[in-house]
Amino acid sequence: MNNFNFYNPVKIIFGKGQISSIAKEIPADARVMVTYGGGSIRKNGVYEQVMKALEGRTVIEFSNIEPNPHYETLMQAVEIGRRQEIDFILAVGGGSVIDGTKFIVAAMAYEGEDPWDILAKREQVKGAVPFGTVLTLPGTGSEMNSGAVITRVSTKEKLSFGSPYTFPKFSILDPETTFTLPIRQISNGVVDAFTHVLEQYLTYPVNAPLQDRMAEAILLTLKEEGPKALLNPQDYDTMGNIMWSATMALNGVIRVGVPTDWATHMIGHELTALHGIDHARTLAIVLPSLLRYKSESKKEKLLQYGKRVWGVDAGTEDECLEATLQATISFFESMEISTSLSDYEVGEDTIKTIVQRFQERGVKNLGERADIQVDDVKEILMMSL
Amino acid sequence: MNNFNFYNPVKIIFGKGQISSIAKEIPADARVMVTYGGGSIRKNGVYEQVMKALEGRTVIEFSNIEPNPHYETLMQAVEIGRRQEIDFILAVGGGSVIDGTKFIVAAMAYEGEDPWDILAKREQVKGAVPFGTVLTLPGTGSEMNSGAVITRVSTKEKLSFGSPYTFPKFSILDPETTFTLPIRQISNGVVDAFTHVLEQYLTYPVNAPLQDRMAEAILLTLKEEGPKALLNPQDYDTMGNIMWSATMALNGVIRVGVPTDWATHMIGHELTALHGIDHARTLAIVLPSLLRYKSESKKEKLLQYGKRVWGVDAGTEDECLEATLQATISFFESMEISTSLSDYEVGEDTIKTIVQRFQERGVKNLGERADIQVDDVKEILMMSL
Repeated sequence: MNNFNFYNPVKIIFGKGQISSIAKEIPADARVMVTYGGGSIRKNGVYEQVMKALEGRTVIEFSNIEPNPHYETLMQAVEIGRRQEIDFILAVGGGSVIDGTKFIVAAMAYEGEDPWDILAKREQVKGAVPFGTVLTLPGTGSEMNSGAVITRVSTKEKLSFGSPYTFPKFSILDPETTFTLPIRQISNGVVDAFTHVLEQYLTYPVNAPLQDRMAEAILLTLKEEGPKALLNPQDYDTMGNIMWSATMALNGVIRVGVPTDWATHMIGHELTALHGIDHARTLAIVLPSLLRYKSESKKEKLLQYGKRVWGVDAGTEDECLEATLQATISFFESMEISTSLSDYEVGEDTIKTIVQRFQERGVKNLGERADIQVDDVKEILMMSL
Repeated sequence: MNNFNFYNPVKIIFGKGQISSIAKEIPADARVMVTYGGGSIRKNGVYEQVMKALEGRTVIEFSNIEPNPHYETLMQAVEIGRRQEIDFILAVGGGSVIDGTKFIVAAMAYEGEDPWDILAKREQVKGAVPFGTVLTLPGTGSEMNSGAVITRVSTKEKLSFGSPYTFPKFSILDPETTFTLPIRQISNGVVDAFTHVLEQYLTYPVNAPLQDRMAEAILLTLKEEGPKALLNPQDYDTMGNIMWSATMALNGVIRVGVPTDWATHMIGHELTALHGIDHARTLAIVLPSLLRYKSESKKEKLLQYGKRVWGVDAGTEDECLEATLQATISFFESMEISTSLSDYEVGEDTIKTIVQRFQERGVKNLGERADIQVDDVKEILMMSL
């Protein structure tokens, strides 16, 4: 096991009826900004629950944070938040609203000239306005970590940042808030969480059996519960199990002391930036090809994953590897997510563009062995055509 | 899954050489008290590493905190701590030193008349002196939770408390600090951690498959690594895996949203209070009898545990239950821990005493179904003779 630090101070408040408890989690005299997305929370009763819990406080709203939240939009919230002297933000939504809010709270407190530098120049965040979340769309895990991914529309860039100051103070996880989600978003959430686990698990062994089994615990749960959710998206236990699995997939617990990959995410972000393909779908496109391309260097963990998660244990090593990849692809497709670029009408032109962008930005040394270069990215994407 | 709150702000710093990092975790101007036990840290180099890291600060020492830390001893530290205006405590040791330190920090800040009330009357803790830990004996999990168990010698009472104020600010987990442990203490640690998991897992199903599998992940790891540690107690990876398993066993992660038992601990504490039997050994005595006595109401989880952890899946239900109990007993005995009261020269007289003490204290409604009464405690202990 490698040396590690682990720190995660997010308070999780899980279960039906828990939105009302935000009242005692937010300082009574706080000037609160509620951030949310396109308005689905106004249709499913979450908005009413939140506003009831905040009764008697100064509350302003900032809505229309879009999927893959835009820097341009978020900077409007930063300006309003500063002007209105907001001192607590409540993000109500999925990963985009929560990620966007992390940028807002960091940018509001940023003392440099241009908050874009937090993303582009990785300027250190030295403070942030405190915030909490009400999660309505499980998948990204943003509700229990300090990271965020932000898109700048004008330059089609999708960049990430994180800081000890951008952990939510609390996150409310009420599975009932997911009951009105479209199937497409449930599928995305399951595949996103599943891929988060694989990015931290399918690397190389470092004698960390507990982390391995904890990763497998999440994979096995998503494998079981994901298909149930498509059949019955209003089953409380199913959605609760998916919600908690997605949170545990990216709160740091399974990452401690082990190498991590994240090349699939780096490549996938480009597909979203260029074509607006849902984040989870970009992962389902890139991951199988990346695993195949890297199957030799990931062999031990791939075989263990195949055996423990998919029950693959017959045949030669090569046959087992292939069966494991096919099982992964079949799972994504059973969740109604296509895994080929052509399914999204994306072709070689886009691959050329991505290669060019990576070259311009000097992207190199991706993956757990820092051995994925731009030429490898091209090969991987060609395998996904 | 049941509703739950989860909050654990302890920073874990894991790995070889990490003791030096306490320097940047403790405020530079803090007046530090270092608490420790019988002096083993002076023999294994940990003391030197700690003192080197604290060079340049005001440091006083409080040693001789005993196993099952005594209220009487700890109150001396409280008095010294107050007089010396200590504002940070560093606990260096195992669960006893860390539990004892949790009581010291809470008692130092206690504004009521008698800090004993924190234990006896469950008076609420409203503040505490901040503290960190350097763990040298894995098992209790105290390094990453806010609970403690304290013994009052004069009355032979062993009582617990916990508070959001008694989480360590940080805990250093360096597996190398365990290299000089006697085998007896390694065995105790493994069996203690294993039982912690079972107390949170062997109850009744509430459709929480992720929590189940995470619990099994720890059990499987301890099952594999425990015997390795007895053979080679200086294997870094083995001791590291045990250390991290023991921490994860009681940091709250596997407990969320599920019922918990803890009757084995309640009963076991009496055996330690009356006869000084090592904590882990009392668990190994009580647990198998309790599981057998409650095998009907714990059936679903016992069968799942037998199958997933011990590979028991042939025969009738009753045969599977018996094989599962036997596997558990065999595991404890393979860790060189006896599971019968007679092995510790304890007989029916002690059972009578425990029953009487529980009656006097009004102990009742133990276990996840609150259905274990004093008469049941007697039956369980009789089965352990």
